[in-house]
Amino acid sequence: MSDAAVGPAIADDEAALATPFVKCLVRLIRAQDSYGSWEGKPDAELLGDFILTKEQRRAIPIVDDPDPDVLWRLDKFYAAVGLAIEERSGLMASPVMEMSHEGFGRVIFTAGRLVVLSKTLRDVHRFGFETLWKLAAAGTKLAGDAIATIEAYPEVARS
Amino acid sequence: MSDAAVGPAIADDEAALATPFVKCLVRLIRAQDSYGSWEGKPDAELLGDFILTKEQRRAIPIVDDPDPDVLWRLDKFYAAVGLAIEERSGLMASPVMEMSHEGFGRVIFTAGRLVVLSKTLRDVHRFGFETLWKLAAAGTKLAGDAIATIEAYPEVARS
Repeated sequence: MSDAAVGPAIADDEAALATPFVKCLVRLIRAQDSYGSWEGKPDAELLGDFILTKEQRRAIPIVDDPDPDVLWRLDKFYAAVGLAIEERSGLMASPVMEMSHEGFGRVIFTAGRLVVLSKTLRDVHRFGFETLWKLAAAGTKLAGDAIATIEAYPEVARS
Repeated sequence: MSDAAVGPAIADDEAALATPFVKCLVRLIRAQDSYGSWEGKPDAELLGDFILTKEQRRAIPIVDDPDPDVLWRLDKFYAAVGLAIEERSGLMASPVMEMSHEGFGRVIFTAGRLVVLSKTLRDVHRFGFETLWKLAAAGTKLAGDAIATIEAYPEVARS
């Protein structure tokens, strides 16, 4: 890759790391670092396993149960969405996730009696994003959709 | 047991079997009988495994994963709650269930953007009811609570 191509990619990464959503995600991951072994690790490296190129995605077999590490990342990703919703709305949005062994499932966030977000999960075996920026955009969009729903039905979310 | 004690118990069972909730449950179970092997089995016998005396409950170990048969019954029970809600409200109430290996979890029913029912699951290993009547009462109450929520927020349930 030439320097000209690397430049914008790094700028994108930095912008991604500065989003409130990615900050939530990094905070959740660092909270699990009981022995301080990731202390010297920069955020981008900590999120490295979330990033998969198209070729890497395709190489992951979809037979058998999803890898426990993938499930851990999926869990952290959606927990970060919940945290981002909470930061912006002041309401606890708790996720409930249901998944089959084939890697299909559903995640629902509720606040009070309101379903603030409902998403079908597919291809969980290959959960990942092409770039940090796409990771940031996906999480930010989910949190934004949830906030819009809360604003549409504020009294139900607070019930 | 004397005849005098058996009499009311049988009447209770018959009343339980006549409730809309238990009818939903029986219908769901019979739908799984692809080979017709339960055709000659009366409803009360079909639901026999849902009934546990206090002593039987206590005898079930709560270490290790819940028994797959228990999970099957739990699943059918909540599917029947969903069906009973649908019969009474005309709205599809779909359950999402999340469970830990320790037999704790949560089940949520949603219709549109409304959480019509949310229940914590405990002691799943020992899922069962002392009598058919208590099974009928538990399912009927859950469906009734959901209906009351739908009536409180009809526009959210239909959104």
